[in-house]
Amino acid sequence: MKDDLVEKLMGEVMAKMGATAPAAAPTCEAAPTPKAAPKKACNLTEFVGTAIGNTVGLVIANVDPLLHEQMKIDKKYRSIGIVGARTGAGPHIFAADEAVKATNSEVVLIELPRDTEGGAGHGSLILFGAEDVSDARRAVEVTLSELNRTFGDVYGNAAGHLEFQYTARASYALNKAFGAPLGQAFGITVGAPAAIGVLMADTAAKAATVEPVAYSSPGNGGTSFSNEVILCFTGDSGAVRQAIIAARDVGKQVLSALDGTELVSSTTPYI
Amino acid sequence: MKDDLVEKLMGEVMAKMGATAPAAAPTCEAAPTPKAAPKKACNLTEFVGTAIGNTVGLVIANVDPLLHEQMKIDKKYRSIGIVGARTGAGPHIFAADEAVKATNSEVVLIELPRDTEGGAGHGSLILFGAEDVSDARRAVEVTLSELNRTFGDVYGNAAGHLEFQYTARASYALNKAFGAPLGQAFGITVGAPAAIGVLMADTAAKAATVEPVAYSSPGNGGTSFSNEVILCFTGDSGAVRQAIIAARDVGKQVLSALDGTELVSSTTPYI
Amino acid sequence: MKDDLVEKLMGEVMAKMGATAPAAAPTCEAAPTPKAAPKKACNLTEFVGTAIGNTVGLVIANVDPLLHEQMKIDKKYRSIGIVGARTGAGPHIFAADEAVKATNSEVVLIELPRDTEGGAGHGSLILFGAEDVSDARRAVEVTLSELNRTFGDVYGNAAGHLEFQYTARASYALNKAFGAPLGQAFGITVGAPAAIGVLMADTAAKAATVEPVAYSSPGNGGTSFSNEVILCFTGDSGAVRQAIIAARDVGKQVLSALDGTELVSSTTPYI
Repeated sequence: MKDDLVEKLMGEVMAKMGATAPAAAPTCEAAPTPKAAPKKACNLTEFVGTAIGNTVGLVIANVDPLLHEQMKIDKKYRSIGIVGARTGAGPHIFAADEAVKATNSEVVLIELPRDTEGGAGHGSLILFGAEDVSDARRAVEVTLSELNRTFGDVYGNAAGHLEFQYTARASYALNKAFGAPLGQAFGITVGAPAAIGVLMADTAAKAATVEPVAYSSPGNGGTSFSNEVILCFTGDSGAVRQAIIAARDVGKQVLSALDGTELVSSTTPYI
Repeated sequence: MKDDLVEKLMGEVMAKMGATAPAAAPTCEAAPTPKAAPKKACNLTEFVGTAIGNTVGLVIANVDPLLHEQMKIDKKYRSIGIVGARTGAGPHIFAADEAVKATNSEVVLIELPRDTEGGAGHGSLILFGAEDVSDARRAVEVTLSELNRTFGDVYGNAAGHLEFQYTARASYALNKAFGAPLGQAFGITVGAPAAIGVLMADTAAKAATVEPVAYSSPGNGGTSFSNEVILCFTGDSGAVRQAIIAARDVGKQVLSALDGTELVSSTTPYI
Repeated sequence: MKDDLVEKLMGEVMAKMGATAPAAAPTCEAAPTPKAAPKKACNLTEFVGTAIGNTVGLVIANVDPLLHEQMKIDKKYRSIGIVGARTGAGPHIFAADEAVKATNSEVVLIELPRDTEGGAGHGSLILFGAEDVSDARRAVEVTLSELNRTFGDVYGNAAGHLEFQYTARASYALNKAFGAPLGQAFGITVGAPAAIGVLMADTAAKAATVEPVAYSSPGNGGTSFSNEVILCFTGDSGAVRQAIIAARDVGKQVLSALDGTELVSSTTPYI
């Protein structure tokens, strides 16, 4: 009976904290705390689906000509696929890279808002262009389905987050977003607060023979003022993975020490 | 008695969560969760009042000459009215537009910090210039009093927010902020995460004969890196309203699906 | 026994709110709510320590040559000290200024991400360069140890925050970050939401004979789009302090009125 009371009281308190508390608490975490796709139905033909990270996928079969002009997108892309998220940019770009490999579409825009719902990083907006709506829709579907994997090496706690991504063969989305050389192995390390990203970049550079492609810090224009340092690098596929694994080991130790809590993967690590 | 106990326990828990929990929880919501003006008194002559969205209104009768210079404001404006908010830019700019119509003052600065207290959007800083302090004060008062209305078509949940604004006749604040043609009907649609804003922009453009004035996305310089897409448009007053209503209908369906919760107005819808 | 029950229930609720609630709640405050350094050990040789504001201090003895190039740092600095924080920039820059006075190191980079964990301000990334690793480490140690003091005049509530910093003699970190004249008394006032910062700047300018060095607002490029107005000024040391104290008095009244709660120092006021 006492346990019942506890349950009841907790229910009351949770209710008083309101829809806000349970919702806001994860929302506010420094770390990306992606949510599974909710089950609420949406019958719009433009709606494709939702995914982890408050990600939504949409498609427009025939973009309005006035909007085409405002968006400065080539009019040959009659249809656009849209993927947007509150939390996560790396996971979405690597997922989109698989989508362009798998479909007859192109990535026409990648933008990184400063977001993560109170955290230290980005959200994302990615547009796919296609001549046919089924291709645009398919690109969005593939991206959404890949996100569970690409969130695997995103780790966070209240003090910050770490992200690692790897592909054996970079395609057009990674080329557009990070300058990744096409067809090459490619990886990124991301650390927040940015100080941890600096140390991970140094660790990655020392751990294997990799070649830096880009280095972004809060003030050098590459991060929309997020509190992250990002190193992008290419090289032999084994070397890229080795660099990532070494950086991940160091980053996890430091971020755990800063918050005093262990880090867990947002889903399941894949690297 | 059991209810008393529940009350007491809840009080204790709330207390332990601290001033932080009840305060921080709404603060952190992705959605703008404006608060009513608190009742705490402030006896400074510069203090005008507070309003929804953690908005504060202030007035300086005689701006210090050194500050005038630093702020790069024309010295003929001896007095400035100041409106600033943690949450909300559109509501404040549309409210300020009514203020310049109603008072002998000018809008000399509109800036959009990336804020909303952990949400996806903006706060705001608006300065009114006047030769007489009573005009500056009156402009601030009008702005604060209009906010309850202009927050009416702001909708949010933990996953994002939507905003819609409409005026039958744009004046100098809307002209300065968005390039709205003076004296014309003017509206905006705002969606966050940005993907929803893209779809709403397309919906608005298709729903009626409107003319886009500006399109802002996270990476094109118009949003201070907020996770929003904003479409600004003009046209016949019926068409502008029709475009907004169509976009609102679509946006609410998608954002509700993303979070799994219904959307409610921050105050009372006016469009 | 009833109290035991209360304790137990509170424990349960806190547990259910999860690691997230207690962690996220302070994290999300608009105001900087620095945490004391956690006690979790980290055995990496690169780890120096942690401090208030989710601050971490690190050192790299021999920066990888590839990274040196990416970071565009002079290669004569074989070692770098790294200080990064989620919450706080002013406290860290003023602390770093003491570090360069006290050690054989130079400040080679100061960047201000838009952060504060859902609040209105900045985090920070500061790099010290040195030829010897012990100098770089020492600079980081001094910075971390100064933070408890420099957070003393940081005040916050759920609606915003105020910050004041003062030094009798500015050195190279303040010169690099704010253009402070070397060897002179120097102070800053910071108010968020930005409207409060405007009023405090005017108050400071009128309260004593000080000379403005810089004025930053959300849209003029100086704040990474934070919701702050910052005034930096120099002058006679008594005048600088007098200007700060006058601005602090006004700022506290307004921010208290906005939120309806009293403001408390993050640590212990020093000005």
